[in-house]
Amino acid sequence: MSPEEFRAAAHQTVDWIADYLRDIRQYPVLPDVQPGALIRRLPKSGPEHGEPIEAILEDFRKLIVPGITHWNHPRFFGYFSISGSGPGILGEMLAAALNVNHMLWKTGPSATELEQVSLGWLRQWLGLPEAFFGIIHDTASTAGLHAVIAAREAAGAGAAELVLYTSEHANLSVDRAALGAGVGRGNIRHVPIDDQFRMRCDALEAAIEADLAASRKPFCVVPTLGTTSSSSLDPLPEIAAIARRYNLWLHVDAAYAGPAAILDEYRHILKGAELADSLVVNPHKWLFTPVDLSALYTRRPEVLRRALRLDQAPAYLQGADGGEATNLSDYSVSLGRRFRALKLWFVLRYYGREGIAEILRGHMRMAREFAASVQADPRFKLAAPVLFSLVCFRLRSSDEDNLKLLDRVNSTGRAFLSGTQLRGKLVLRLAIGNIATTDADVRETWDLIRSCAP
Amino acid sequence: MSPEEFRAAAHQTVDWIADYLRDIRQYPVLPDVQPGALIRRLPKSGPEHGEPIEAILEDFRKLIVPGITHWNHPRFFGYFSISGSGPGILGEMLAAALNVNHMLWKTGPSATELEQVSLGWLRQWLGLPEAFFGIIHDTASTAGLHAVIAAREAAGAGAAELVLYTSEHANLSVDRAALGAGVGRGNIRHVPIDDQFRMRCDALEAAIEADLAASRKPFCVVPTLGTTSSSSLDPLPEIAAIARRYNLWLHVDAAYAGPAAILDEYRHILKGAELADSLVVNPHKWLFTPVDLSALYTRRPEVLRRALRLDQAPAYLQGADGGEATNLSDYSVSLGRRFRALKLWFVLRYYGREGIAEILRGHMRMAREFAASVQADPRFKLAAPVLFSLVCFRLRSSDEDNLKLLDRVNSTGRAFLSGTQLRGKLVLRLAIGNIATTDADVRETWDLIRSCAP
Repeated sequence: MSPEEFRAAAHQTVDWIADYLRDIRQYPVLPDVQPGALIRRLPKSGPEHGEPIEAILEDFRKLIVPGITHWNHPRFFGYFSISGSGPGILGEMLAAALNVNHMLWKTGPSATELEQVSLGWLRQWLGLPEAFFGIIHDTASTAGLHAVIAAREAAGAGAAELVLYTSEHANLSVDRAALGAGVGRGNIRHVPIDDQFRMRCDALEAAIEADLAASRKPFCVVPTLGTTSSSSLDPLPEIAAIARRYNLWLHVDAAYAGPAAILDEYRHILKGAELADSLVVNPHKWLFTPVDLSALYTRRPEVLRRALRLDQAPAYLQGADGGEATNLSDYSVSLGRRFRALKLWFVLRYYGREGIAEILRGHMRMAREFAASVQADPRFKLAAPVLFSLVCFRLRSSDEDNLKLLDRVNSTGRAFLSGTQLRGKLVLRLAIGNIATTDADVRETWDLIRSCAP
Repeated sequence: MSPEEFRAAAHQTVDWIADYLRDIRQYPVLPDVQPGALIRRLPKSGPEHGEPIEAILEDFRKLIVPGITHWNHPRFFGYFSISGSGPGILGEMLAAALNVNHMLWKTGPSATELEQVSLGWLRQWLGLPEAFFGIIHDTASTAGLHAVIAAREAAGAGAAELVLYTSEHANLSVDRAALGAGVGRGNIRHVPIDDQFRMRCDALEAAIEADLAASRKPFCVVPTLGTTSSSSLDPLPEIAAIARRYNLWLHVDAAYAGPAAILDEYRHILKGAELADSLVVNPHKWLFTPVDLSALYTRRPEVLRRALRLDQAPAYLQGADGGEATNLSDYSVSLGRRFRALKLWFVLRYYGREGIAEILRGHMRMAREFAASVQADPRFKLAAPVLFSLVCFRLRSSDEDNLKLLDRVNSTGRAFLSGTQLRGKLVLRLAIGNIATTDADVRETWDLIRSCAP
């Protein structure tokens, strides 16, 4: 594709994207498609001869878009809502064109250093210690995997003997990280939660003591700040003290709620994080950065590096030394690295700390107002404290009614909520997090929910 | 950022990208910067207030670009040369705007199914069995990690007891994958190579026998098709037979050379791959797809799924069932998934099978012609057979002279080659793989090399 053919097609593509962002409320949030629909409409085999880009773009619009779940939709309220913001998309465009692979400093000086700088800025905004080393991964699962690998290295024992502790309400990525690193399936403890869905420290200690008594090896504890089901906060200072007492690696999963600490009034949620061995926060979740970008911070990068070191530097990287410079791939399983920092840098600069704080505050205000509406309607009740931008609520009637409500709302295509279980009951989750979500979106979604209630 | 502000900035960005692609030969391939230069030029802290997008784009051009190693440059001949092709960049732009996370089918029907379809097309073009299940990872290291996790599950033993075999010339990603999955550092065997840099089967068998005699547990062997140092091919059919005899998981690292099998005349390189338990090929390497996109195929997806299964489906994914549909995150450590298949689909369609074959053939022809030039100059010699698009060569004189030559060439900024060691000697590597590389690029690089020879 010549540069001029690219230019023409890319201008068209930009107009499609801008129109998409402008008209996004006209798209159903959830597509009305059955499994296999796209597979059936696409050829069984790839084309023998090349096709014009216009035909591909047209098929994108006609075949692909109708099967998209619109995560960038302001009325996507499921799981945790995310944003492919304008500056983030611009950063991705440039990263794709440069196509840098900064496995080593020398193979991408700007990419390496911008990753350090942008994660440094974010670290400061979160109030984390300067000693925290930052590195970008694709997802919190991969970041967590690296935390567990480091924890395993620090423990100096075979993974199969080691025991990891997290709460019943931890994200499945914690389990996946542990399983990936070789922790035995039977050695992942899901510590019970209290009535606010927080890890119970007495239960944590009891579990550790029981494992020690059975000659097993506790090595890692993973508290969550902003659990997926209810956005609850595990008691970090207490868990940090227990981690210290039993010499456990403390990995903090702040993937969702971490960015709230940018606000002075929420800074306190990271109290105890300064004692963490590692911490993950996801700018691709509540920080307007397109998927994927997860930031892993660690106080002990040398342990991670030791866990993944090679006995001998590969000959084919000969001459790629950057002297004192950091080679980020020394700290990750992946040798190759995309220039993900670029989109984060665009986002942090375009909005600034205050701008970001303002948007996060807005999301939390909208969540509180939605919660107030729920409480004002006698048919509904809140199902969990509203700590951030997630509201968990339910009809006071049966699970069946709540499931019916959820399905009805989602099948309209006018909003998307997800469900969970709290205290054994089905609960609806409205998670506000898209940068384009307005008061009207939330208000009209509440009207929609009420009108769908059985 | 309003859609209209995005539109204006994105049109500007497209023009910058198109100009960049057009004028790329005016950029030095390797930047002339010292470690820390960018860090020193950027503010220590992120901005308190948002900044105009024009200022950010200007800083991108003035501060970031001068420190870029231009992997998309047609004279980037180091490591393995890659391409951020036009259609690939368009795919990335759209993926960033949609911002889909297809962790489950329901959260991204089109993304899930396009991943299956595009990997199916590629599988057919490579002549791999229909039973091979495909899934996209970021890099071959991560794909390899998943192969080792599956192999560990199949072995049914603790990772620390297991022994993995690969060649002395395997990519470091194999070591990283094994270390990540918990294989003991002392249990990664680097089997010696023959005089063509291929894994020696007699040495492989001897190593396995020795480990068995010592009551260790051989569990996995990783042959490479297209080693990083010399692009050599490990003898796959023989290794497959050994894997079968000793019941080892056979993971084939075809990250670089795999795409050559799209050509009828190179199809034979994958002979034996039909017996593989898993195989990785990197479209982001020699298939014109922007970084990152690595395709993992496995004949035994159920083993991978079992290794990563949860005891209980998380409550917060309630109601996200797609019935019979495949949920790709069941097969990976990562829950979150970027819509990477889009760019691959754009590339496969835009070029078609024949178009891709034509470009790969051109790269191999240019490599052969470069090799002929090397052989025609009495000061130089080839250092390895030219099997694909990589030429390993050296001055007949000292390592010192070769290092001097490499540094001189690279410091001109007019081309970038990397070095390695073969038979204990420093060797220069010219890897052709960028989609824009022309005969003139290769010819002028040869002139440059000759003029730099000490």
